[in-house]
Parts: sequence; structure tokens; C-alpha cells
Amino acid sequence: MYPFRNDKVWLQNAWYVAVMAEEVADKPLQRTILGRPVVLFRGESGKVHAMHGLCPHRNYPLGLHGKVIGEAIQCNYHGFVFDGASGQTVSTPSASDAPKSFCQKTYRVEERGPWIWIWMGDKALADDAQIPSLEALKLDERYTISPMMDYMHVDARYMLLIENLMDLTHIGFLHSMTAAFAEIVNADIDIVEDDKGMRIRRTMEAKWSLYHDAVFGPELRFDGAARSDNEAIVAAVGYCLNTSQTLREIDGRPVGPEFAGEIWFHHVCTPETTNSFHYFGTQSRTIKRDDPDLGMHLREADARVRAEDIEAMEAIERQLAQFGEPEVELLVKSDVPAGRLRRRIQRALDREAGALERT
Amino acid sequence: MYPFRNDKVWLQNAWYVAVMAEEVADKPLQRTILGRPVVLFRGESGKVHAMHGLCPHRNYPLGLHGKVIGEAIQCNYHGFVFDGASGQTVSTPSASDAPKSFCQKTYRVEERGPWIWIWMGDKALADDAQIPSLEALKLDERYTISPMMDYMHVDARYMLLIENLMDLTHIGFLHSMTAAFAEIVNADIDIVEDDKGMRIRRTMEAKWSLYHDAVFGPELRFDGAARSDNEAIVAAVGYCLNTSQTLREIDGRPVGPEFAGEIWFHHVCTPETTNSFHYFGTQSRTIKRDDPDLGMHLREADARVRAEDIEAMEAIERQLAQFGEPEVELLVKSDVPAGRLRRRIQRALDREAGALERT
Amino acid sequence: MYPFRNDKVWLQNAWYVAVMAEEVADKPLQRTILGRPVVLFRGESGKVHAMHGLCPHRNYPLGLHGKVIGEAIQCNYHGFVFDGASGQTVSTPSASDAPKSFCQKTYRVEERGPWIWIWMGDKALADDAQIPSLEALKLDERYTISPMMDYMHVDARYMLLIENLMDLTHIGFLHSMTAAFAEIVNADIDIVEDDKGMRIRRTMEAKWSLYHDAVFGPELRFDGAARSDNEAIVAAVGYCLNTSQTLREIDGRPVGPEFAGEIWFHHVCTPETTNSFHYFGTQSRTIKRDDPDLGMHLREADARVRAEDIEAMEAIERQLAQFGEPEVELLVKSDVPAGRLRRRIQRALDREAGALERT
Repeated sequence: MYPFRNDKVWLQNAWYVAVMAEEVADKPLQRTILGRPVVLFRGESGKVHAMHGLCPHRNYPLGLHGKVIGEAIQCNYHGFVFDGASGQTVSTPSASDAPKSFCQKTYRVEERGPWIWIWMGDKALADDAQIPSLEALKLDERYTISPMMDYMHVDARYMLLIENLMDLTHIGFLHSMTAAFAEIVNADIDIVEDDKGMRIRRTMEAKWSLYHDAVFGPELRFDGAARSDNEAIVAAVGYCLNTSQTLREIDGRPVGPEFAGEIWFHHVCTPETTNSFHYFGTQSRTIKRDDPDLGMHLREADARVRAEDIEAMEAIERQLAQFGEPEVELLVKSDVPAGRLRRRIQRALDREAGALERT
Repeated sequence: MYPFRNDKVWLQNAWYVAVMAEEVADKPLQRTILGRPVVLFRGESGKVHAMHGLCPHRNYPLGLHGKVIGEAIQCNYHGFVFDGASGQTVSTPSASDAPKSFCQKTYRVEERGPWIWIWMGDKALADDAQIPSLEALKLDERYTISPMMDYMHVDARYMLLIENLMDLTHIGFLHSMTAAFAEIVNADIDIVEDDKGMRIRRTMEAKWSLYHDAVFGPELRFDGAARSDNEAIVAAVGYCLNTSQTLREIDGRPVGPEFAGEIWFHHVCTPETTNSFHYFGTQSRTIKRDDPDLGMHLREADARVRAEDIEAMEAIERQLAQFGEPEVELLVKSDVPAGRLRRRIQRALDREAGALERT
Repeated sequence: MYPFRNDKVWLQNAWYVAVMAEEVADKPLQRTILGRPVVLFRGESGKVHAMHGLCPHRNYPLGLHGKVIGEAIQCNYHGFVFDGASGQTVSTPSASDAPKSFCQKTYRVEERGPWIWIWMGDKALADDAQIPSLEALKLDERYTISPMMDYMHVDARYMLLIENLMDLTHIGFLHSMTAAFAEIVNADIDIVEDDKGMRIRRTMEAKWSLYHDAVFGPELRFDGAARSDNEAIVAAVGYCLNTSQTLREIDGRPVGPEFAGEIWFHHVCTPETTNSFHYFGTQSRTIKRDDPDLGMHLREADARVRAEDIEAMEAIERQLAQFGEPEVELLVKSDVPAGRLRRRIQRALDREAGALERT
């Protein structure tokens, strides 16, 4: 299935963001992840649990009006209670004879900063160390995080957005941003891959732009040419973060403290089904850390941009659904990062498929 | 298809409620029953007719703006007229040459009290005596019938609701009724089957409950323990009726006339497609027969309960549609009546399938 | 697929109306035609172009916020520009290395009066001379054309409407027009076929009707019998035009100039998918050419009639979707024209299928 070679389009043995930490409060939450029904809930201890989302008794979704009791969840249909950690049947108020030995399948979850990560694959292979650290994600104490963006549901295969993020030349058209377009097109691209992920850096000869206006204020405007960086990091299969234009040098001299610092835009895409994904987002910054207005401004501007991306992704998905997989694919220089990432994920998919076949 | 062994999920040679008598007045009504298009209408004589719902000329649904003429129905597209009893082409105003010999398929229907029953199977096997009598349905002159509930369309396989009714322990959760929950869980269950149907009786040591408050009034409240019965009768494949808590004895003595009598809740489920059903309902009672307020109260309370059931059934159906048939089914003691009924219907399905194969 | 013998239900090598000329102004328009995605746009020269509607780069629909540049169209995703005539990649602002040699598939289009015609088949076979002339369509300077009707999208196979138009006896029921019903039923039908199309003429002994009231005014009413004609012309696969009741003689004498002239109703049906079509319409007349009120009256009355037809077509399509192809088809005398046309198109479909197989 486009853009991959076969029907396997996501890695099973990988960490994905299941929910924002703030989404899981006092009520359970039903969510389809990698095509499977999952219920997530926060036990009274504060720990988040995830398990198969359908009651084994009558197939009722546990997250629909389900009730948290200690570290367990109670089904709203006949009251069966399952322990969040083990999945074991804790109590069955409606049937004292219910086998306590029954275990509902549970999933490994880890809360890290604003995210709850989930491992949907083979539990024996789950390794917390593979979850990108808050430092790697630019979410540690060096950064101020904007208020989380609203949860977004996108009716499109997740790779459409991932590849969208790899080719920033779309900003000149889809987002009507003319300011940095020429610079992005002409930028040198440097791609570094290691076993943790991929980093793409575009180095641009840039001018003062509307982006800088909004971030630094028009009173700091300069007229010369600046060297500026755009960076994108693929930190996990569905986790990309990127900067816009980070000023590095003005007229050949390193920028002063008034321009120093970065703003990262977080794009978190978790496959729901083969044709839809959960989309989470926020921004983190070292610039003007104590200015809440900047946080709100970034969130609003980002929301407008993402709405345009989502409209585009869903339009493309509808074409694929109606007319089938693309008949041609005309790839150009600006698609190099997307192509690298696609091949990288394809190799991982192939490895996993091979491993699955050997099992 | 869950909960049955194969794709055949309804009996063809059986009587089902097609519509409420009051739904068929001056206008024809198009309804899909057991997966087939049916038009129902009341002729000028008052008799209700049912026939294949698509005009044989141009496939137009006869019930869509169709017109009743005597005991016949006229298609709204080109005016073909078919006799309700025989299905014969009575007249074709637009084409004098139309073959009068053509017969539209008709179905046997019988009006009994508030219901119009239909036989969708082999006409030669249709036997009116198999329609449950008004006496068996607790709808004869001994009972006062509440105003009929509004027609309900449910996007779920009909057996989900039938099995829901067999296991009343769900009231403690889905309907948040705590009053009788413990008593229902601990009740002795007595199941009687014969060739007409199935009867389930739960005998409980019960306390005065909100139900008794509403029915008898709080001024009659007593503090002692009462013996109370909950009964359910499966009178036809898609017809269940049940009582809530009928008081039998208080402190070991038979209840006085102020508590005597029964209230029956009627649940009528007719398969529309394999994944949806028509749901009809009312209540009939021997208690306070002349109190119209009680009738309206029962109707309203029942509507709230059924809305919760419908939400649950449709949620389960969506899970089955999205994730496939249940991978496990953890059945417990409270599922015994549902299991008995499921096996009973499965045997009838198998018999009918065998009979069909032999034909 | 009903009403044809096999899955091929439209002619590929034929001219269809793609859009109304007035629909293609300053913005591109995305439309599915014969199951293929097409973008249509008017270049700065005024010429209309049509090409495959998905960008070969990232499958984005070119008509979605696409931009016309000269005679080319620019994709809103990454700005690729394709020439309307040749389909060639004119420029790729985001990637200077893009191969200019790439050609997007284009379609032949021809603007004629209010219509833009498209040829979706083999370009080598496209012959403008096969487009019905404005004279043949009664749209030349002899006629006044009413304001175009709003574009209508119909969720039904296009042949349902074509065959509807061939059998006018439905007006007595679907459109509740009693005035001319008996006359239409009893009319002699004369059918003429040639390689351009088909003409059906019904000659009726008619009385003054509401139609004449509206067109000529009640003050001209007469009481005698008139000979009146109803004509239908199938000018192209999806293009039918018909008159209502054209007065020819009153009491045996040719009508005077106050009654002379015709009004033609244009029904233009272009398959979108196998189960939906684009529906365009207008009226053209030689009667009261300078009376704009009559044009608006015709447009409004026609819109009411077509809304009833559309409701019927979509109802029939839903029955076909739910219950499968018709089990019987009871055809009568009034279906003769529809039957002739169906066989005519079936033969053309077979010829084209044979030709395709030989290729």
C-alpha cells in the first residue's frame, strides 16, 4: 500500500504516542491504535494503563462509560473488572463464578512528559530505552512547552503527513508563505542517519521574515542577509520535530543573545487504521521562555498551518481511495529526504516482516 | 456470524412483527424485513397487506408515495396497480397491454392486537396458530396496554438485544440501577422450555425499591423482606416480554390486593438486515389498570432504559464490524439463559437449513 | 450491470458534456468523469483545458485551490505547473531539476454554446464533427435559452434517467400531471433512428392544458381539440432534449402565429461513476423569445419536475444497491422507446468492447 511495497505499513514492534498525558484524567479513553481496540486509563496511583479495549464477556468497549476502580477498570455492561497491570479479572459482581484466571491482554505504556507511549508489539521486545528521551525530543527542562494543541483525527494514511514534513517546499503553495520559499528551495540539505533516527538540516541565506517578526518583534528587524537553519528530526517512526528558521549569523557574525535560541514544532502521528491516524502537536522553545503570549501565538499559527496540511492529506487519501494507488510518481530533488525516510522505514518493515515469518 | 455458527442468523419460516398496527394507516410503508424489501398497506376494508416492495416494472419502491386503491397499491412511478391479496396486476393506466397475469409476490400477514405479524418464508408452511395468542403475550382484555412506544431502528444484529434481555445483571451498570442488583445476582433461576418458547423465572428476596415507589407509591412502603419474581418469556423468535419485580410475599405472607398484579415489558425485535433490526415496544399491566399516568410513566422510564440498551448494542456492533467476530467469549453463570436461548435458536436454524437443503 | 448486459455501462469513445461553460471561470474545477479524475480550467486566452486531475508528484487533486497561470495550471501542494494543451511540465518552482519532459495526460475539450464537451477515450478517434451542432441541439440563434439550471449531482446510474425520459407516462404519477396523461398514453409513437441519434414523436389529440396556460396565457384558451406533438431527441449518449406539447392544429386547421413555436427541455447526463452522474439542464424556445419571465418560469417549473425525477432515480439506485439487480423486468408498450435506446447503446458498447479487445 502506497507509499510502501506491500500491505504492512507500520512497525508493530515500536513505541508510538498513544495519547497526550492530559487526555487521560479521570475517565477511560477508547482509542484504536495500529488497528487494534485499546482502552487507556489512569489508575488512582496516577499510573496509566492500557489493555485490549473489548470486554471478553460481551465485546462491549471498555472505554465507553467504563469506570476506574483503583488500578483496574470496570466494564459498563455487566461490571467485569480487569486489573490495569496484569489484565486479570479482579471481580465480576454479576457472577461470582467468573474465572479469576482470565487475563485480558495488556500493553506496555510509559508516560514521558506530555506523552503516553505505547508498545503494541511483542512485549518481550519492549525496551523503554528505545523511547526517545525528553532531551532528544527537546522537551526537557531547557525548553518551554506551549499549551498542547487539540487532538486531531486525520482520515489519511500517516505516511502522507510524514512525507509532507520532509519536503518544506510545500509552504510556498499549500500555506501561501512566500517569505522563506526561495531560500528553502535553494538551501543545501544535509541528512544524517543513525540507528535512533534521521536529521535533516537546510542551511539558508535568509532575510528577515514574517516568522521573525512574530517571534522577535519588528523592532529588531535587520536588513542584511542572515544564515539561518531549518532542522527536522525524525525521532521515532511517528514523531517528527522541526524548526522554522533559526538565525545563526547576520552578515557573517554569530547572532547576539536577542536572536539566539530555537523553536521546535512537534508532529506526532500514530496510525489508527491503514487509512487514518491520530495527530498530536505542540511547540517547545528556548526563545522568550517566560512569554506566555508567544506560546499562544505559536499554537494558533501552527493550528492554521496544520489545518491546511490536514485538508491536503485527506484530499489525497480520498483520491487514493477512489482512483487507486498512484499510477506515476514524479519524484524530484526536494523529495530526497522523504525518499530516504521512506526507504528507511521500508527496510525496518521488511526486517520485521522477516522476523515475524521466522517466528 | 456471531453469535451463531454460520451465516444463517434468522429463521425464515417464522412469524415476526412487521409493524405496529397503528403505523399502517392511510399511507403505505416501505420496510426491509429479513433482508427483503416489503411494502405494507391497509386496504380500504381495513385489512393489512404485504407484498414484495419493488415494482416489477422499474424497480421503484412501492411504498414511496405509493397510493392505496381499494385493496390494491399503485406505484408512484408509472401507476401500475397490484392487488394486496393476490399480487395480481389489477391495472396499468399507462399501458393497456400490460399482462394482467403477472403476480407480484405477496406475504402472509396477520393483525393481532397492537401488532401486524408477517410470514416471510414458505407460504405453504405458514400457520396462524403459531402466532402467539394475545393471552400468551399478556395483551388480552385482562391487561391495560400503555401507549405504544415510538418505533426504534437499531444498527445492531438483533441477537445482541435478545441476549441482553436474558441477562438482567446488566441493570446495575448499563442502567445504573442499584436497587435490585444484588437480588438479581443472587436469585435462583428457573428455566422452562417447551415447543412454544422459553420462560425464565428469577425468585428474589427483595426489598422495597424505587420501582415499587413509582408503581405503588411511597405511602405503601414496607420495611420487611419480600419475595419477588422477575419473569421473562420468549414467546417468538423476536418477541420477549418480562416483568421487573412482581411482589409475591411479604414476610412470608402472600401480598394483599394493593400489591397484586403484574407489569410486562414487551421487546419486539425483527431483523431488518444481518446487522440491524426494527425494535418495537410497549408495556401491559394488571396493576392500576385505570391510571393513565402510570401508563405514561412506564413508557417514559422504559424509553430511557431502552436508549441505554440501544447505545450499547450499536457500540458492540461497531466493534464487531471494525475488529471482526469476538476472539474470546467469557461466559458465566448469568449467561445461562442467553446460552440456552442461543442454542435453541441455533438448533432451529440448523433444522431449517437442513430442510432447505433437502428441498 | 443493469440495464446493460455486462459491466461496461458507458461508451469511452464518445463526446460528453463535462461542465457548463459558465462553471469554468477563473478557478479550476475538479470533476470525476467516466470514473476518472479530471481538472478543467479556462486559460487566460479563454480556451478551456482538461487534464488528468491528480498531480503526478504527490497525487494532490489539481483542482483543489489550483491556480491558473496563462494556459497552464499550478498544483497547490508543491507548485508544479502543467500546460493545459500539452500537459507538459512547464515549471517546478520547488525543484529546478524536475524533468520538463514529463507530460500529464490531457483530454480533448470543445466549447459549444453553453456546454464544454470532453472526449475521454482514444484521442486518435476524437472527431469534433461528432459533437452535435448547436442547430441539432436547438441552441443556435433561432432559440432563446433560459438561464442555465443549477448543476445537479445524482446518486444513480445515468441510464435510469435516460430511460425515464423515454417513457413520459410517468408524468401522471411521479409528477402528478393529470392534464396530458391520457393523451400521452394513447398517443401514436413514431421512432426514427439514424447514425446521429434517435427521435421519438408522439402525436396527441390534446386539450388546452395547464402547460398552455403557463406558456400562452389563459386569455388564449380554446375549447376544441388540438393536435399536438411531443418530441424527444437523443442527440448524444447522454444528451436528450424534448418538447412538452407543441400545438400543431386546432380543429383541423394549422395553429396561428400566436401558438406557433417550440420549447425544448435539455437533459444532459454525464456518468461520474457507475452509480452516479452529473446532470445539467436548460430550456430553449422559439415562443415569446423576448419574454424573460417565461424563461424564469420554465426554469422554475422544470426544477420542480427534475427534483421529483432525481428523488425517484436515487430511490431506485438505493434499491439496486441494497437488493441487487432486478429479478424481473415487466416491460410494456410505453417502454418501447426506452428498449430501443437501450439496445442501441448496448450495440455500441459491444462494438467498442470488441474494438478494445482487438486492440
